[in-house]
Amino acid sequence: MRFFSDNAATVHPEVIAALAAANQADAAYDNDRWSRQLDGRLAELFGTACEVLWVPSGTAANCLALGALCPPWGGVICHRDAHIQNDEAGAPEFYTHGAKLMLADGPGAKLTPAAIAAVADAQANDVHRVQPHAVSITNATEYGLSYRADEVAAVGELCRARGWGLHMDGARFANAVAFTGEAPADLTWRAGVDALSFGFIKNGGMTAELLVFFTPGLADETRRRRKRAGLLLSKGRFLAAQVLAMLDGELWLASARAANASAAALADAAGARLIHPVEANELFLRVSPDEAAALRAKGFDFYDWAAGEIRLVTAWDTDAGHVAALAAAIRALNSSPGRGGGPPASRPVVEGVLD
Amino acid sequence: MRFFSDNAATVHPEVIAALAAANQADAAYDNDRWSRQLDGRLAELFGTACEVLWVPSGTAANCLALGALCPPWGGVICHRDAHIQNDEAGAPEFYTHGAKLMLADGPGAKLTPAAIAAVADAQANDVHRVQPHAVSITNATEYGLSYRADEVAAVGELCRARGWGLHMDGARFANAVAFTGEAPADLTWRAGVDALSFGFIKNGGMTAELLVFFTPGLADETRRRRKRAGLLLSKGRFLAAQVLAMLDGELWLASARAANASAAALADAAGARLIHPVEANELFLRVSPDEAAALRAKGFDFYDWAAGEIRLVTAWDTDAGHVAALAAAIRALNSSPGRGGGPPASRPVVEGVLD
Amino acid sequence: MRFFSDNAATVHPEVIAALAAANQADAAYDNDRWSRQLDGRLAELFGTACEVLWVPSGTAANCLALGALCPPWGGVICHRDAHIQNDEAGAPEFYTHGAKLMLADGPGAKLTPAAIAAVADAQANDVHRVQPHAVSITNATEYGLSYRADEVAAVGELCRARGWGLHMDGARFANAVAFTGEAPADLTWRAGVDALSFGFIKNGGMTAELLVFFTPGLADETRRRRKRAGLLLSKGRFLAAQVLAMLDGELWLASARAANASAAALADAAGARLIHPVEANELFLRVSPDEAAALRAKGFDFYDWAAGEIRLVTAWDTDAGHVAALAAAIRALNSSPGRGGGPPASRPVVEGVLD
Amino acid sequence: MRFFSDNAATVHPEVIAALAAANQADAAYDNDRWSRQLDGRLAELFGTACEVLWVPSGTAANCLALGALCPPWGGVICHRDAHIQNDEAGAPEFYTHGAKLMLADGPGAKLTPAAIAAVADAQANDVHRVQPHAVSITNATEYGLSYRADEVAAVGELCRARGWGLHMDGARFANAVAFTGEAPADLTWRAGVDALSFGFIKNGGMTAELLVFFTPGLADETRRRRKRAGLLLSKGRFLAAQVLAMLDGELWLASARAANASAAALADAAGARLIHPVEANELFLRVSPDEAAALRAKGFDFYDWAAGEIRLVTAWDTDAGHVAALAAAIRALNSSPGRGGGPPASRPVVEGVLD
Repeated sequence: MRFFSDNAATVHPEVIAALAAANQADAAYDNDRWSRQLDGRLAELFGTACEVLWVPSGTAANCLALGALCPPWGGVICHRDAHIQNDEAGAPEFYTHGAKLMLADGPGAKLTPAAIAAVADAQANDVHRVQPHAVSITNATEYGLSYRADEVAAVGELCRARGWGLHMDGARFANAVAFTGEAPADLTWRAGVDALSFGFIKNGGMTAELLVFFTPGLADETRRRRKRAGLLLSKGRFLAAQVLAMLDGELWLASARAANASAAALADAAGARLIHPVEANELFLRVSPDEAAALRAKGFDFYDWAAGEIRLVTAWDTDAGHVAALAAAIRALNSSPGRGGGPPASRPVVEGVLD
Repeated sequence: MRFFSDNAATVHPEVIAALAAANQADAAYDNDRWSRQLDGRLAELFGTACEVLWVPSGTAANCLALGALCPPWGGVICHRDAHIQNDEAGAPEFYTHGAKLMLADGPGAKLTPAAIAAVADAQANDVHRVQPHAVSITNATEYGLSYRADEVAAVGELCRARGWGLHMDGARFANAVAFTGEAPADLTWRAGVDALSFGFIKNGGMTAELLVFFTPGLADETRRRRKRAGLLLSKGRFLAAQVLAMLDGELWLASARAANASAAALADAAGARLIHPVEANELFLRVSPDEAAALRAKGFDFYDWAAGEIRLVTAWDTDAGHVAALAAAIRALNSSPGRGGGPPASRPVVEGVLD
Repeated sequence: MRFFSDNAATVHPEVIAALAAANQADAAYDNDRWSRQLDGRLAELFGTACEVLWVPSGTAANCLALGALCPPWGGVICHRDAHIQNDEAGAPEFYTHGAKLMLADGPGAKLTPAAIAAVADAQANDVHRVQPHAVSITNATEYGLSYRADEVAAVGELCRARGWGLHMDGARFANAVAFTGEAPADLTWRAGVDALSFGFIKNGGMTAELLVFFTPGLADETRRRRKRAGLLLSKGRFLAAQVLAMLDGELWLASARAANASAAALADAAGARLIHPVEANELFLRVSPDEAAALRAKGFDFYDWAAGEIRLVTAWDTDAGHVAALAAAIRALNSSPGRGGGPPASRPVVEGVLD
Repeated sequence: MRFFSDNAATVHPEVIAALAAANQADAAYDNDRWSRQLDGRLAELFGTACEVLWVPSGTAANCLALGALCPPWGGVICHRDAHIQNDEAGAPEFYTHGAKLMLADGPGAKLTPAAIAAVADAQANDVHRVQPHAVSITNATEYGLSYRADEVAAVGELCRARGWGLHMDGARFANAVAFTGEAPADLTWRAGVDALSFGFIKNGGMTAELLVFFTPGLADETRRRRKRAGLLLSKGRFLAAQVLAMLDGELWLASARAANASAAALADAAGARLIHPVEANELFLRVSPDEAAALRAKGFDFYDWAAGEIRLVTAWDTDAGHVAALAAAIRALNSSPGRGGGPPASRPVVEGVLD
């Protein structure tokens, strides 16, 4: 019973069907009839004109966005636990040609204007020090928290005031929208987001994510960067088709709601063991090594996050029976959590693949 | 009737079926049961141990290979008309961190040891001049010529003597193998090739190419570079599954043979109009503007290569009736070619997307 | 008797004296009283506001300029024999993060609008091909030719029309000004030059060149790039002082005139042996190997440029007696040149350090 | 009375004299008679064969070293307050093509094996996370502490065990040698240092630092990187001559001793105000804003390090009378320090140029 990662989940049958349906000869790269629909479809969803590029990975979406928002000699402020800092193997530095990630703090990997400003204000504005040019926030965060629109807007206001770009890593954007009920527009461009990495792969897609530019002037150069990075797939219609299938009938939202619901059921069972509020499809629990072993003995697979802590992830296809079984197993554990106190102050030692 | 590009072709139904069959939860990235088969399957095909990485594009395969073979301050000798020089938007420079492509000449975009040595020997070996570290050849070439094993071996011998790496861009490697009947091993590692970009997408695949390392010591760092470039897809099993489907029952070879056979039929019709020998699935014909218009009027789609020249490309799925019709239409053209003489001395003005 | 390179020349005593005079405590980097004079002094010389950065080498000046004018995914059109292409070890690619040099032809390494446009027009404007963003010309050229103001203006007009930047590599700008008598303004900003690498080192300086920006908006980011490249020297006052000494009393122009006069005297002697007109301080002569050996036997040191060709370079401090002796020795050679015809069609094999 | 920075100090008259003496025609770049002496002279000093490159700045020396020791996809462990992290504007990222600085903690900006290992061990060794390839320590540190040979050796042992390179930023190496009395060999190669940035500019030089490689195999590629960065000055003899003058008669050591002696005298006066031990030529004092103003009113110039903290730097040429006057002025301040507690936990807000 898999609660290890939403990357391990299956692809939604509608997406598979869409691939078969797209198997017709058409123009190469992104000149086909599927790719050409994307701008329009996302404009509908967000209620504003936007320019949309498909890419085959979230790392690609994030780092193309950072390259568009920050010059090689600049810096990007992000959370100390951000995926771009810890889990992308230096891709931000590769795509920006060596820009610096400037690390801010905040509970649950969520950033506030104060935390961001503190990082920026510690750098004297002289030629010897890297200056911030952009902020990147993750929604839902690496600890499964969802930003409310006003929280994003507060960050966006700071960015506007300082002349910085604002990127949102939305690998689990669908989960955040589903949890908060906020309008996609309110969480993004109305709040000052210039570029959104809109994730589909964890949510039932196969190999397609979107990079959505709300701010004009960034997409054209990014199309060149995308090609230059080997990310412009020649049969791109099969990426566009995946996304269109997910957008049809709000499949993306239904899938996220399903994943969130499973997480909520587990959260209910976990109670005081929860390290962070559960606002998407991830749970972080205080569980002693013995307890973890007991859960594994019952057939549950999950991630050892840190000493005395585990991570559970649900997906669009998580089996309801598995959820019920895991909830029961968690309730059956001795109720005293294996580890007291709040979240760890710094990124812990981990032993496997995080995504 | 499409003779524009093999990128526009459809995906083989076996590949589509393989995607559906792979739609099971498994480990993320390349730890799944499909990806883990690749090293072994390619070792069988090539008759030697090798390390294999899937990537979503040929540009990615080529440029990861160049990065592995050439340091940022080095040079890669390639043909003046090579895809890496003209059609990858600077991806070689991006992936190598600024290495220089050093351009050699040769009919039909084929390189000889003499042509390669001439480029190298024109650079004094001092600290002021970029020194070659690798050679990249394309097989089949950009003009549809296929290297024989002894031709590759001659280049490989030069590379060994000079201490250079040897990369083969095999976007149409299948077509070259199918045309020459040479063993894959003889065209690659036995001839001194360190790294092969093994193309599947033009040949019936969807979004998966392979980078095959025959020389130990290059794959590990390249796996890091692949991740750093956003090319390590989280549901990588769907790339591996495509390739495995193409390898099963030698589907890759059957598909290439079909494409080559269509090209051969057209070559037969084209006769003296051919600018290059037809040794794969591409044809370059001397055709006047009026003749080209006449062909288009009959419903044939193709690429205007240069003034008085067109390119035709066949694919695994090219309709036999369309081939017969085009052959007849070519024969029906006035037999005097629209343009005398050999291939153009320099890269011509082109107006569309080349692939 | 040295006619090998103006880099081997001595430093003008006024420059040495200026270093001693600048040996006072002052602010570090470029906040000192010498560095702060540069903008004003160059504005006087060029008759327009400009922003000026000292750097310790011509390569640094050239490549910071290219970085300011061309993005990583763009191209810079330059002559096939340009110093930036052949003699800077890939520095343009390093500083631009992998932009591509696009090579144009022209006699004497001089570029015309037609030659530049031919390169640009051969690239279809699609996302697969690197697009030009800038042009770089060298004045005086690598073969010692000097641009006239109207020649630069013609190139500048093309650049403006296409939206490209224009860089002038002026390692021997002083020699070009001295030879043509053109106003520095007419050769640069009035002709559309955005950035000038203004050379002093070959002309009697020690370790200081200037990068002069005539176009606003480029200097600030370049100051950051300069620091990021380790080129912002902490005791920068000693670079500024060198340049100020060269500007005082037009020492830069007097020095260039002296070098040019020596070259003119040798050109007079060389007559039909000259491969290029002599319009600065370099001469390229057809000289057979036996003749070259005879000259060397008399104590003259120079550069073997190519088979049957030598390069002579004069400097500000070239001894008049040495010039007379070399002129006589050249006249004494058998008058039939060792090699007929014009300049070589392609860059020749060279065996030493070119500068 | 200047206690702001040793970069503001004058150049030693012997260095000025050496420049004048080197003003003879000779080979360009580093083929001259001065540059060719460097390997031998440093081999004598360090008692081992080494390969030596002059460069015009400490940033250049540091970042060429990092480029030699760490690939683009790797990481360099350094102190959170290291110059390479805070004061080089992203030069490490530029020269390494985007490697990541991984920040360790330690009092006085000194690193221990435990602190280094903690950073490394927090990174799971998988392809998603940047792995350390090198360690960089600063000696004397950014807070003026000097490593003892056994402290360096402990770090060196860790590096050897993990397969990492070890770089020493020795912008104030002379001060550390002078303070500790350790042999240069014991502080470097015998302790496992692969590459040393050996500073001269802060210590009476003008524009020359050395990059010393003790480990074979790194210098050749670094010579190419140096050229590619525009750091290979054409009249390099004037850099070599500066260094040779500083090495003659141990001028480098005498100068450092003079600077250290001035610092020691001030340290004596500062007493309990000292934030760090004074082991080189820098002092960090707790001084209230009022007290700082009082010192400035008496004509002393220095750097506001953080709230309630100032930095004083002495140099080889610091006037003895000024030292006595400042010592007296410090003693005259009210003895209660303006700020209690130890060094600040995180890098403070600064307002000027730090070096």
